[in-house]
Amino acid sequence: MEITFDGQRVRAGVEARERFYDSRGYGRPRGGTLELAPVEAAHLLFRGDLDSVRDRREDRTLDFGAFLASTAVSEVSFLVYKELRDRGFYLSPVRDGPADTDCEFAVYPRGQGPWDDEVAYRVRAVSERESVPAGELRALVGRAAADGATGVLAVVDEESEVTYLELTEPTVTGETDHDLPGVAGRLLSDRVLVSDPPVALYERAFYGQQVNPDGLVQLSLVEAAYLADSGLLSLEDADDPGAVLRERGRAVEGDRFDRRLRTYSTLRTDGVVPKTGFKFGADFRTYAEVESVDQLGHSELLVRVLPAGHVFAPRDLALDVRLAHGVRKQMVFGLAGDSLVWLAAERLTP
Amino acid sequence: MEITFDGQRVRAGVEARERFYDSRGYGRPRGGTLELAPVEAAHLLFRGDLDSVRDRREDRTLDFGAFLASTAVSEVSFLVYKELRDRGFYLSPVRDGPADTDCEFAVYPRGQGPWDDEVAYRVRAVSERESVPAGELRALVGRAAADGATGVLAVVDEESEVTYLELTEPTVTGETDHDLPGVAGRLLSDRVLVSDPPVALYERAFYGQQVNPDGLVQLSLVEAAYLADSGLLSLEDADDPGAVLRERGRAVEGDRFDRRLRTYSTLRTDGVVPKTGFKFGADFRTYAEVESVDQLGHSELLVRVLPAGHVFAPRDLALDVRLAHGVRKQMVFGLAGDSLVWLAAERLTP
Repeated sequence: MEITFDGQRVRAGVEARERFYDSRGYGRPRGGTLELAPVEAAHLLFRGDLDSVRDRREDRTLDFGAFLASTAVSEVSFLVYKELRDRGFYLSPVRDGPADTDCEFAVYPRGQGPWDDEVAYRVRAVSERESVPAGELRALVGRAAADGATGVLAVVDEESEVTYLELTEPTVTGETDHDLPGVAGRLLSDRVLVSDPPVALYERAFYGQQVNPDGLVQLSLVEAAYLADSGLLSLEDADDPGAVLRERGRAVEGDRFDRRLRTYSTLRTDGVVPKTGFKFGADFRTYAEVESVDQLGHSELLVRVLPAGHVFAPRDLALDVRLAHGVRKQMVFGLAGDSLVWLAAERLTP
Repeated sequence: MEITFDGQRVRAGVEARERFYDSRGYGRPRGGTLELAPVEAAHLLFRGDLDSVRDRREDRTLDFGAFLASTAVSEVSFLVYKELRDRGFYLSPVRDGPADTDCEFAVYPRGQGPWDDEVAYRVRAVSERESVPAGELRALVGRAAADGATGVLAVVDEESEVTYLELTEPTVTGETDHDLPGVAGRLLSDRVLVSDPPVALYERAFYGQQVNPDGLVQLSLVEAAYLADSGLLSLEDADDPGAVLRERGRAVEGDRFDRRLRTYSTLRTDGVVPKTGFKFGADFRTYAEVESVDQLGHSELLVRVLPAGHVFAPRDLALDVRLAHGVRKQMVFGLAGDSLVWLAAERLTP
């Protein structure tokens, strides 16, 4: 069986087509013959189904090690391809993504293959050292959705283990809605003290934190700015308390404050109560339905607020997703740019 | 009872000394009278033990709200002071630290006070927005040790909750020791493939990862560089494989590679086996004693490698410590500079 490689594609004859495509979903038929992507050929070499491939450019034969060490195929793509094959999936590299190498795969439902119409996952393979812009993750989700599939980032760590992260653009809404009277506060250096709060402020609507049980509530700057913008908080000597609070917020947090306020306001407007996520290293944890603080349920989401153009380091993503999983919450990134976009990530075992 | 404030200290007479110092550990006696730090006076005002303080500079009286809103006392210090008092501790601000404000406290064992000699914790109060250089955390550990006490960072989040992080400089050693024969590898783009590994390489000494069960081990660059430096790994066409691997490591990771290699080498030399900590968002997880991979125990530490001059953001610290706690490991930072220093952090409930 003569198998040749021209630097882009591996080509084989009709026998290979029957053995590899028809029965096991490798490659694409081209007329009667078979065209294999380099990552598919590497897997056949690895399994011993092929002994070697003849490189037509240099007229030499390449075994598995030599083929993998060449630039023909990325070891990261190979490791993801192999891992998914080991799990019993058939999959094909696709090249409508950001790169013209075999770094993205259409993974078929178990028991199906390239001759069927269904795609279960759209999987992008990256090394743990490769940063990924938020826009590329969103585009992956979009390409997956066009296939009726789930977008997945497969991260290969330095010891060649693969971690799968399922990506979605969720809707974040809740049922919380309270009527509140206005309150007067006093601005400290990075929080606001309300000396005479109505009971509903903390105990029903869950704004702030009680400094002592009979009154005296402190608000975070972001809570205070939202209440001021809603016309519900006044500050001594301030005609425009919202502006005063935003100015203070920017002074202590920079641009991040505006992104957090925007995210906070969107959540509150959509019926969700955000509280600090500090203990989880996040911006907020959220409650979709708060009737009263006494009957508070489990918070559902951890929210990290990021600029829309944020570039994710896979290791930070792994850290957030692992932590959220451990505390039974979903990790959601708020990408704040011209609009606010939610991107959720969670561990997947395909 | 006349209580005056001069911008630095609050002064009160003999009656206050009896009421506040002798029986409840507030302030320091000065002759027959009492000198209170602003944070102590703020707490007495908060509790209603004092109604107001007379500011001698402007001849006006300040109630709790006005005193806290003035620059006399940081709300962050007040919140930590109050939280520790609520937990039943007596404590005194100390000023031998990095700041001349009341941001660091000597906390006495429960049931003891400033008139005893023992200190349980040395607590530094910071806002979640305040970054803390590694050197300051180490100095805090040092000051605590000088008192026979534990160093603690108390972080006040934006909603005024306090998170306590106990800091130590641990010794990190283990019992792992294996004799290995040399091996030959092939450098891929960011890992090394060993086609014919001796069984001991992976199965006993736990280097690398098996790509398939009958052989073929892949090593991470940091593992490969350590083995090459130890004279145990050769690479095709390389006279100095250690240099080749360090060069590749720097190409894919920059300076971070040198810090990680140094940390990896120190751990292996001290009998500890580091493996990737990627799934936990860390550099390494570690095993103190590896006899064989079949009998591998639970890994004990998560290690994050940082430059010696790293400045910690409390939120990142909270994230690491929370994650480590959730997976029953200790979080240890490897501060790599002229020497390698270990700094451990874990959640504390005083």
